[in-house]
Amino acid sequence: MAAARAPDAPVITVHVPLGDRAYDIFVGRGLLGEAGARIAALGARAAAIVTDSNVGALYGGALADALQQRGLRASIITVAPGEATKSYASLETVCDAVLEARIERGDLVIALGGGVVGDLAGFAAAVARRGVRFVQVPTSLLSQVDSSVGGKTGINSRHGKNLVGAFHQPSLVLADTALLDTLPIREMRAGYAEVVKYGLIDDAGFFDWCEANWQGVFAGGPERNEAVAQSCRAKAAVVVRDEREEGDRALLNLGHTFGHALERITRYDSARLVHGEGVAIGMCLAFRFSAFLGLCSADDATRVERHLVTVGLPTRLQDVPGGFGTVDELLDGMAQDKKVKAGALTFILARGIGQSFVAHGIEIAKVRAFLNHEIAATRT
Amino acid sequence: MAAARAPDAPVITVHVPLGDRAYDIFVGRGLLGEAGARIAALGARAAAIVTDSNVGALYGGALADALQQRGLRASIITVAPGEATKSYASLETVCDAVLEARIERGDLVIALGGGVVGDLAGFAAAVARRGVRFVQVPTSLLSQVDSSVGGKTGINSRHGKNLVGAFHQPSLVLADTALLDTLPIREMRAGYAEVVKYGLIDDAGFFDWCEANWQGVFAGGPERNEAVAQSCRAKAAVVVRDEREEGDRALLNLGHTFGHALERITRYDSARLVHGEGVAIGMCLAFRFSAFLGLCSADDATRVERHLVTVGLPTRLQDVPGGFGTVDELLDGMAQDKKVKAGALTFILARGIGQSFVAHGIEIAKVRAFLNHEIAATRT
Repeated sequence: MAAARAPDAPVITVHVPLGDRAYDIFVGRGLLGEAGARIAALGARAAAIVTDSNVGALYGGALADALQQRGLRASIITVAPGEATKSYASLETVCDAVLEARIERGDLVIALGGGVVGDLAGFAAAVARRGVRFVQVPTSLLSQVDSSVGGKTGINSRHGKNLVGAFHQPSLVLADTALLDTLPIREMRAGYAEVVKYGLIDDAGFFDWCEANWQGVFAGGPERNEAVAQSCRAKAAVVVRDEREEGDRALLNLGHTFGHALERITRYDSARLVHGEGVAIGMCLAFRFSAFLGLCSADDATRVERHLVTVGLPTRLQDVPGGFGTVDELLDGMAQDKKVKAGALTFILARGIGQSFVAHGIEIAKVRAFLNHEIAATRT
Repeated sequence: MAAARAPDAPVITVHVPLGDRAYDIFVGRGLLGEAGARIAALGARAAAIVTDSNVGALYGGALADALQQRGLRASIITVAPGEATKSYASLETVCDAVLEARIERGDLVIALGGGVVGDLAGFAAAVARRGVRFVQVPTSLLSQVDSSVGGKTGINSRHGKNLVGAFHQPSLVLADTALLDTLPIREMRAGYAEVVKYGLIDDAGFFDWCEANWQGVFAGGPERNEAVAQSCRAKAAVVVRDEREEGDRALLNLGHTFGHALERITRYDSARLVHGEGVAIGMCLAFRFSAFLGLCSADDATRVERHLVTVGLPTRLQDVPGGFGTVDELLDGMAQDKKVKAGALTFILARGIGQSFVAHGIEIAKVRAFLNHEIAATRT
C-alpha cells in the first residue's frame, strides 16, 4: 500500500462484497454522532444496544436517544467489561435480554464496545431467533481493525478461546476513530499489533508505511483513519476469498497460534496479557520460527521485532509478566487451539515480510526444538 | 401424492438439494445396523454421539462400536431425556463435551434420539468451533418426519420454545423405521400429527392417503416407510424454496402458533402435552379459525378433526389435561412466538385441505373472537 493519502479525508468507506451478506464499514472521526441516522437507514423498528459498563456509561445513553429520535425502539443491555464476559452465562443473559426487548428478525442488535462486546453481541445476534441483524460500533483500535470485520463471533470455553460461536456478518460497521483518543496507551498498542499484522501477511508496502507513520496513528492524525481503513480493506479481502475459514483466511491467524497459547497460560488475565500483546509476541515468534526453519531471513525477523519494540509492544516469551509456563504447557495450549487439523499443528509462517503462508502439518518436535532454542537464546 | 407404492421397498432415499449443503435422507427398516458404514463413508476421523439416557442405553454402545470398527474415534455424550434438556445449560455441557472429545472441523456430531436430542446436538454442532458437521439418527416418528429435516436447531429460552438456535444442515439423516416398533403409542400419534400436516399444507392427495393407510403406518408396514419418506420429501421441498424461513417455509408452522402457545401454557410438561399433540390441536384450530373467517368450509375443518380423532389425537382446547389457561394467556403465548412480525400475528390458514397459506397481519381482536367462540361452542 503506497498510494497517496488525502490529508483530511472525513469518512472512508470500505465495502465488503459478500453477496447477500455484503455490508459497509465507515471509518472516520466523529461517526458516533451520526450513528442514529446511519443505523436508522437500515430500516429496523427496534434495536438492542449491547455494551459494557465502561463504554455504556460514556456513550450508551446518547446512542439510544439518537435512535429513539429517529423512531426506533431502543434498549440497552449492559455486561461487565473484560474477557470473562465472553462466557456461556453472558450469552444466556444477552440472548434473553434481546428476546425480552422483543427484537424481531428484521430488528437490530448493536454492539457498542470493544472486541469482547462485539464477539458476544454478534454471537447473541446470530442465535437469538436463529439470527437477527447486527451493527458493530467498535470503540477500541483492536475491534476497529480486527474483530468487527469478517463475521466471526463467539465466546470462550474452558477448553479455549473463541471455541464456541458462529459466522454472522454485520449489516453495518461504524468505526469512530475519535473514540480512540481516550483509549489507554496499552490498549492502543495492542490494537496496533493487528494493524502491523496486515503488512506482515501480504503487504510489505504497508509495513513500510507503518514504520514511517505509526506516530500519526497513535496521535490521531489522518494516518489513524488510513491505518484503520487499510486494515479493514486487507481483512475484508481475505474474508471475501474465504468467508468460513476453509483456506486463506487462516492467514489472519499470523501470530495467533502462539498468542492464544500465551493467553491460555495467563488465563486470559488482562492484567498480565491482552490479546494484541499475545499476537505481538506471537508474530515475532512466527518470524523467528520461520527463520529457525530456514524459511525467511533473520534480518526480517529482527525488523519485525524492532518495529514492535519501538511502539512499546512485547516481543518475547520473557516479556509475559508472571512467566509463560513450560514448553509443554505452550505446546498443549497450541494443540487445543481450534486451528488444529487432523492432529498436526498448523502455523502461519513467512518467507519474508509480506510473504506469509499457511503451513500445515508442522511436527511438534520442530516446534519444541524452536521453543527450547528461543528460551535458551533469550536467557543469555 | 397418489403414485403407486412398491409394497416392500427396502430403503428410500430422499435427496435435499441445498447446493453445497445438500444431503441425503435414508428411510428404511434396520438402517441403524448399517449406520457404521454409512457414517464412515462421510470421511471423518472422529464422532461424538449425543443421545439421551433412554435411547443411549438401547443403541448408543452399538453405534459407537460400529464406528470404531470402521476406524473412527467415537465417544458418547449422554443428556437427560425430555424437553427441559433443550436449555442453555445443556448447550454448554454438550459443546464442552464435544470440544473435550477433540472433534475438529471435519469431524462429526451424531444426534441419536428424538427431536430434543436432534435440536440440541445440531445446535452444539453449529456453534462448536463455529460449526462442525453433524448426522441425524432420529429415533422417534416426530423427529424422522420433522425435526431431522431442514436444518433448524436450537434450545428453549424462558421467553419461549426454540427461540435460540441456528440453521445448520445435517450431512446425512438415517431414519430407521424399525425403531418406531417400540415407541409408546402416544409418541407415535404425536409424530403422526406432523405427517398429516404435510397433506393439509399442500397435498390433498396425501391427506386422502393418510385416511386410507394410517393403520399401516402405525403397524409398521411399508406404509410407514412411505409416510416418513413422503413427509421428508414434502418438508425438503419447502426448505429448498426457503431455507432461512423468510417466506414459504412458514407454511410448515401450520398448527404451530396455537400449538406453541399451548405448550407454553402447559410449561412444556410432556405429561400434559407433547409437541405433536399441541400441533394436532393447533391444526384443528387453524382450520376452524379459517372456517370462522369464511376462508374454508366447515366440512373440511370437520374432516381434519375426524381423522385426528380416529388415530387418537387431541383436537380441542378442552383436550389439554389440566386446562388450557385463559384466552389472554393463549394470546400472550402466541404474541411471544418468534413468528411475530412487526407486532401483528402471522397464522397459517387454509382455503381447504391441501390449500394452506401464510396470513400476515391477523388482528388480535379476530383471534380473540374466535377463541371465545371456540370455548363457548365446545362447552355446550
